[in-house]
Amino acid sequence: MRAVDLIRKKRDSGELSRDEINFLVSGYTREEIPDYQMAAWLMAVWIRGLNKAERTALTEAMLYSGQVLNHSDIPGMKVDKHSTGGIGDKTSLILAPIVAAGGLTVPMISGRGLGHTGGTLDKLEAIPGFNVNLSLEEFRRVLRECGMGLIGQTAEIAPADKKIYALRDATSTVENIGLICASIMSKKLAEGIDALVLDVKTGSGAFMKKEQDAVELAKVMVETGQRMGKKVVALITDMEQPLGRMAGHANEVLESIELLRGHGPADLRDLSITLSAWMFYLGQKTKSVKDGIRLAEQMISSGKALEKFRQGIRLQRGDVRVVDDPTRLPQPRAKAEVRSAASGFITGMHCENFGLALASLGGGREKKEDAIDHAVGLEFHKRIGDRVKKGELLVTVHYNSDVRLAEAKSLIQGSFRTGKRAPGKRPLIRRIIGK
Amino acid sequence: MRAVDLIRKKRDSGELSRDEINFLVSGYTREEIPDYQMAAWLMAVWIRGLNKAERTALTEAMLYSGQVLNHSDIPGMKVDKHSTGGIGDKTSLILAPIVAAGGLTVPMISGRGLGHTGGTLDKLEAIPGFNVNLSLEEFRRVLRECGMGLIGQTAEIAPADKKIYALRDATSTVENIGLICASIMSKKLAEGIDALVLDVKTGSGAFMKKEQDAVELAKVMVETGQRMGKKVVALITDMEQPLGRMAGHANEVLESIELLRGHGPADLRDLSITLSAWMFYLGQKTKSVKDGIRLAEQMISSGKALEKFRQGIRLQRGDVRVVDDPTRLPQPRAKAEVRSAASGFITGMHCENFGLALASLGGGREKKEDAIDHAVGLEFHKRIGDRVKKGELLVTVHYNSDVRLAEAKSLIQGSFRTGKRAPGKRPLIRRIIGK
Repeated sequence: MRAVDLIRKKRDSGELSRDEINFLVSGYTREEIPDYQMAAWLMAVWIRGLNKAERTALTEAMLYSGQVLNHSDIPGMKVDKHSTGGIGDKTSLILAPIVAAGGLTVPMISGRGLGHTGGTLDKLEAIPGFNVNLSLEEFRRVLRECGMGLIGQTAEIAPADKKIYALRDATSTVENIGLICASIMSKKLAEGIDALVLDVKTGSGAFMKKEQDAVELAKVMVETGQRMGKKVVALITDMEQPLGRMAGHANEVLESIELLRGHGPADLRDLSITLSAWMFYLGQKTKSVKDGIRLAEQMISSGKALEKFRQGIRLQRGDVRVVDDPTRLPQPRAKAEVRSAASGFITGMHCENFGLALASLGGGREKKEDAIDHAVGLEFHKRIGDRVKKGELLVTVHYNSDVRLAEAKSLIQGSFRTGKRAPGKRPLIRRIIGK
Repeated sequence: MRAVDLIRKKRDSGELSRDEINFLVSGYTREEIPDYQMAAWLMAVWIRGLNKAERTALTEAMLYSGQVLNHSDIPGMKVDKHSTGGIGDKTSLILAPIVAAGGLTVPMISGRGLGHTGGTLDKLEAIPGFNVNLSLEEFRRVLRECGMGLIGQTAEIAPADKKIYALRDATSTVENIGLICASIMSKKLAEGIDALVLDVKTGSGAFMKKEQDAVELAKVMVETGQRMGKKVVALITDMEQPLGRMAGHANEVLESIELLRGHGPADLRDLSITLSAWMFYLGQKTKSVKDGIRLAEQMISSGKALEKFRQGIRLQRGDVRVVDDPTRLPQPRAKAEVRSAASGFITGMHCENFGLALASLGGGREKKEDAIDHAVGLEFHKRIGDRVKKGELLVTVHYNSDVRLAEAKSLIQGSFRTGKRAPGKRPLIRRIIGK
């Protein structure tokens, strides 16, 4: 088998066999196939596409390029959730303790933020001392002890994905359903899970702006996971506006704690509980999603989920005192206000801009190597459909450096659309794929 | 400007500007743009294509990646011919002395053979001592002195093409009209010529098997050359059977000498004279192609072309005695015969196989680094349309090693098709593009 022939086959819209895909991925991981051949193949794939069998084969090849965790020493089902990312999406911090408190194991390997979206690892690191870089041995110990663990991708997990992702980034071959699917699913399935709930965001703050694209990606991921013997469902959820009231790292930890105390905004609560419920149901903890909702609500109202959160922080060496004393989270030097330029109803938002504004203030990454200011954040006072008067407060900005403050404020203000009539209601959970 | 954005633009079927193409080519030549980005771009180009303006810009960028020769110190027009290659195509060795003898300058930078086609440089090297690796300074001296020079691509000539061609070879992005055009035209125009005659072969022994593809490539090359201010025509010529009676390196030198003596097969003579005539006409040596034919014939009948060939060999340090004593060319250890398996008319040939058979006997390259046995060759005794009896001699094989002789003979024999009826005549020169 020769890489050049497999490149030609895909270039000519041919279907690659499982062996052929495995030859490419394993050869590339072992550095026997050079970057330039992989780059040509990725571009051919981007343009010609991958069919079901090819997507599954690629996911498998990337999955088995590294270690696949095995938690058979821990009783019960192992479940996880993956979100394609958006503004204010902190559900991982909420549902992991809910589901672990409910008796399932959540071995969560997460990513960092890049561009307009935040990353779970960065949010956790807003908690002083919290260590997301556990070894796989420590990770297993934490999982065994408290049922949840939240770490970053180690060198042992899907090394092919790490190498291929960096190459895709440099060769404009990122936005392809098959490649995205293989990248996400190979990392998630390497966690050694039995079931996975996908939260595929759609709207102006999401990676997939069009609902149709989100549905297509969701279908492809669900089908690939199911072909590999896992229980998978995908929720298509709205990202036309931030999830919850808070965006930014310390801010989102704070809001997650509020949620686990039984408070917090309705949209964030609804989504966190629904995602937890699907995890309970797929993990065979409850007979239905409805029972799953009840169990998730109990975990909050009983305080068990918050207690699990404390235990998780402690085991990953974070300062557990932040739970009761939020001033121990990184604090901003100052706050600024963004006020409405018009009166009327808020009819829409250019949600991605909130993430870009956050990043420009230091609260996100423009390049991979950028440091993050965990204290920077946004607090949203209005939602789509709310009535607003000219001059009324829309967003409070938490910041440390005012170098790009004026620019960020103007970006935020310009991202609100107002009109004379209230817009129709948008359901938060738009579709469920794979149920 | 960023390479990743230009890759994306072509991926999405966009048109790149002259500056953008120049940024990519010059950045790649200076090793500021890595192989993997160029590979992704080449695959996007292969699939999405290049339009007229892009092809011209790419040709220019590759041309100006190195030195463009200037022969303004030599009076008169500088002209050249380029063939896309076939079996037995030795016209360069014949027309260069004809045209130089007729008073034009032929600064010919040629290539080596690979796969089923031979290369002019390899053929010249069958002449003991012939040096194709002149420095550009020596090349200019030879040109000034005798009006013709035949060398290989130096490091100074279109270095971008050298780098890009190697990458295309490894990434299955070779067979694309725009990329082929830029590769050929950048090298040829770097010779510092005023006019170029292209011989685009079509048929079973050609790179372009279908006439339609050959015509498309010819049109693109003519148009690109004309956009760059050069006089260019292309002849679409038949390669359903070998050109002349001889294939192989020493064999082809021998047949070229016969031609220059006024002998040799009609097809080779007709094509060599027609190509020379177009060179005379485009080089403003004659008022018409018809006058060019007369001038070319005179150069042969007067012995001036053969004398020019002797001078050229001498100046490039070859053994000029081969012209009168062909036994000074590399001789094969033995000869074998391939005879017809059937009686009837020869209706067709799988012409590419002759080149592959030659290569398998050591008379061609399978890989770039292979050495060549210049003595290995084929002598064809029959042409399409000839009547043949079962057992009659078709091909004499000149060989040194018999390791793969049986295989080669069977490949050659199987490449002749016979039938009961004589096939229709095939014109050798099928179309002229750009006249």
